[in-house]
Amino acid sequence: MNNNYIVIDGGVTAPQGFRAAGIHAGIKGKKKDVALLVSDHDCALAGIFTKNRVFAAPVALCRERVARGSARAIVINSGCANACTGEQGMADANEMARLTAEQLGIEANAVCVCSTGTIGLPLPMERIANGIRDAAAALSDDGGTDAATAIMTTDTRRKEAAAECLIDGKTVKIGGMTKGAGMICPDMATMLGFITTDAAVSQPFLQKALARAAAHSFNRISVDGDQSTNDTVLLLANGAAGNIPVDENHPDAGVFTAALTAVCTALAKAIVLDGEGATKFVTVTCRGAKTSGDALAVARAVSNSLLVKTAWFGQDPNWGRVVAAAGYSGAELDQSKLEVYYDDLLVFRNGVPVMQRDLSQLEAVVQKPAFQIIIDLHLGNATETVFTCDCSHEYVNINASYMT
Amino acid sequence: MNNNYIVIDGGVTAPQGFRAAGIHAGIKGKKKDVALLVSDHDCALAGIFTKNRVFAAPVALCRERVARGSARAIVINSGCANACTGEQGMADANEMARLTAEQLGIEANAVCVCSTGTIGLPLPMERIANGIRDAAAALSDDGGTDAATAIMTTDTRRKEAAAECLIDGKTVKIGGMTKGAGMICPDMATMLGFITTDAAVSQPFLQKALARAAAHSFNRISVDGDQSTNDTVLLLANGAAGNIPVDENHPDAGVFTAALTAVCTALAKAIVLDGEGATKFVTVTCRGAKTSGDALAVARAVSNSLLVKTAWFGQDPNWGRVVAAAGYSGAELDQSKLEVYYDDLLVFRNGVPVMQRDLSQLEAVVQKPAFQIIIDLHLGNATETVFTCDCSHEYVNINASYMT
Repeated sequence: MNNNYIVIDGGVTAPQGFRAAGIHAGIKGKKKDVALLVSDHDCALAGIFTKNRVFAAPVALCRERVARGSARAIVINSGCANACTGEQGMADANEMARLTAEQLGIEANAVCVCSTGTIGLPLPMERIANGIRDAAAALSDDGGTDAATAIMTTDTRRKEAAAECLIDGKTVKIGGMTKGAGMICPDMATMLGFITTDAAVSQPFLQKALARAAAHSFNRISVDGDQSTNDTVLLLANGAAGNIPVDENHPDAGVFTAALTAVCTALAKAIVLDGEGATKFVTVTCRGAKTSGDALAVARAVSNSLLVKTAWFGQDPNWGRVVAAAGYSGAELDQSKLEVYYDDLLVFRNGVPVMQRDLSQLEAVVQKPAFQIIIDLHLGNATETVFTCDCSHEYVNINASYMT
Repeated sequence: MNNNYIVIDGGVTAPQGFRAAGIHAGIKGKKKDVALLVSDHDCALAGIFTKNRVFAAPVALCRERVARGSARAIVINSGCANACTGEQGMADANEMARLTAEQLGIEANAVCVCSTGTIGLPLPMERIANGIRDAAAALSDDGGTDAATAIMTTDTRRKEAAAECLIDGKTVKIGGMTKGAGMICPDMATMLGFITTDAAVSQPFLQKALARAAAHSFNRISVDGDQSTNDTVLLLANGAAGNIPVDENHPDAGVFTAALTAVCTALAKAIVLDGEGATKFVTVTCRGAKTSGDALAVARAVSNSLLVKTAWFGQDPNWGRVVAAAGYSGAELDQSKLEVYYDDLLVFRNGVPVMQRDLSQLEAVVQKPAFQIIIDLHLGNATETVFTCDCSHEYVNINASYMT
């Protein structure tokens, strides 16, 4: 058994047998806005989705595809979410699958469809149709970067990651791309993620591995506490590496899951780093909790607190807000046992601040572009971590004028 | 039976037999920072408190006083929360009660103590002691306004309200003051409220009436989703009006509760209107829910959504974010039945926007300083309302530099 993987360059076209493209179809301004991702072979398909009870048409379509368990292609548009669009929206999503299938000479039910952008607007289907045709013509085995560019909305940076590992002695690659900046928490809100692998993986295990990887990556990032109507992560495994299909009992199941988690975590961190208006990357860990649920509740409450996040932006060492957020998280805690650290600096113990007079060391931590906050409840052994960012003026700017 | 009340001028010294003062003790800058409120007679005492598991020393003290059920005086300081201050904080809170009792010639356990301000700093007890002496000397039967000024922190406006009603044919007055601007949700976070009445009221009924009034006022306001360590609302009833003590069976119990709720609602709305950086007052109502819990969950999710609040600030009619927030609230809902109104304007029905092309009417609503959003789930008969505000640059400014 071998639990090693290495991080490599690239994204969704890093694994063998995948081609991609990203082109400009005119849905939004002058940017690339239609992406296409295709496998040369049939793939096992796994997917996870928003828990929002208001979900977009393409989410409904992708849920059907994941229930089917296999796919060959994914078509994605940015600039329009195709959410709150009723029956027309569902018809448009199906039409996107049909048009893509037609271009690729495959079945429509082998095509997944994702959309991201403004809620409530109808898809400009003529432009989408032209875009799908252009994207199919542009497919290439180094098109991952173009695809990663075409799925961006308020993102300021393209987000790709890849890793390589050995399964049955065969080299297996995993590549991914994601978009997402605002609305990130706690259930992978307003993000799309696409992951490819040339490993052969049984579909039930692929779904389990994705759920585990997401639980420690996409579901652990917090930007602003909202959940979107369109969140989707899809994972395609085409088997081109020629390994014995990975399942729960495969000796290299652990290495596959570890490499997949590494790719998902890199993508999730990239989303936080690109959080709308973010100036700081903060890792919030709660340890010593009675249960994992309590640890996660504390880490999320601190990560989502607008008062905590604005204090970080102001480089204000306002640890009292961290303690207060832990207190209202719902987790069992005793304020006299609680400890709070900023990086290695103990700031709160036995119900009182450790440093009352000299805040300079603490200020030095919050002035850093990245730091860690640890809340130790001293009630048990559970630990959980959430990745988050600060809240700045720029966040308000971006979100005050998204629609108009 | 008579359910009428009238709104009158004034605050905590509007009812007979109450004196108050607000003075500058030097805890913060040059502003008034110590308030004292005293009844000439023993009072029945009711109180409600933060649900935060991290709570300040004065909250612990006031919980003991409310368990006792009677009091004569309340001393309040702003500028320092006396939270996260451990045993010293508890000793300081008790000392504040003792010093006040000494000045007034009453028992220390007849004195309630409240603090508000920065977490984690020790109280400057020498200044507090001088302040209590000065406040006792300044007590007057029109000192309510000074007291309301002395409890302010980031508040930009003093907040007072009063009402008058008839009980047993006797004129009864209820007066109140509050402080609070940020951190208001969903359980009366970072607010202090003080209400006085010259009605005679049985203590158990006083507690019930306060809980009911708060449930529809202080617990229905949302500014930023955080809950503080110090939230407290205290209600003193001194019986000076000479009515038969009000209890559950008193024929005028309803009028007392209605007048009390009116005072609490006026104070709660004043907090939202003074929300840190707020430029708009928004009433969010969810109707047609299966349960009250569902209705409240939807109204709170919409009210607390940072994406919704920044869109309001930008006067951006982004109703899609309202629908999305309802969707992740946890309430049972069906996106094809859901309706959304901005004031009287229907914007979403049957899963699709009602107006796709002309947003000008909708923009006219969100440009108003106050408007209403109604989400009708069409699943049942429960209705709940929450009062909230937008989120502006100024909010970020205020909270980025509170401590330093």
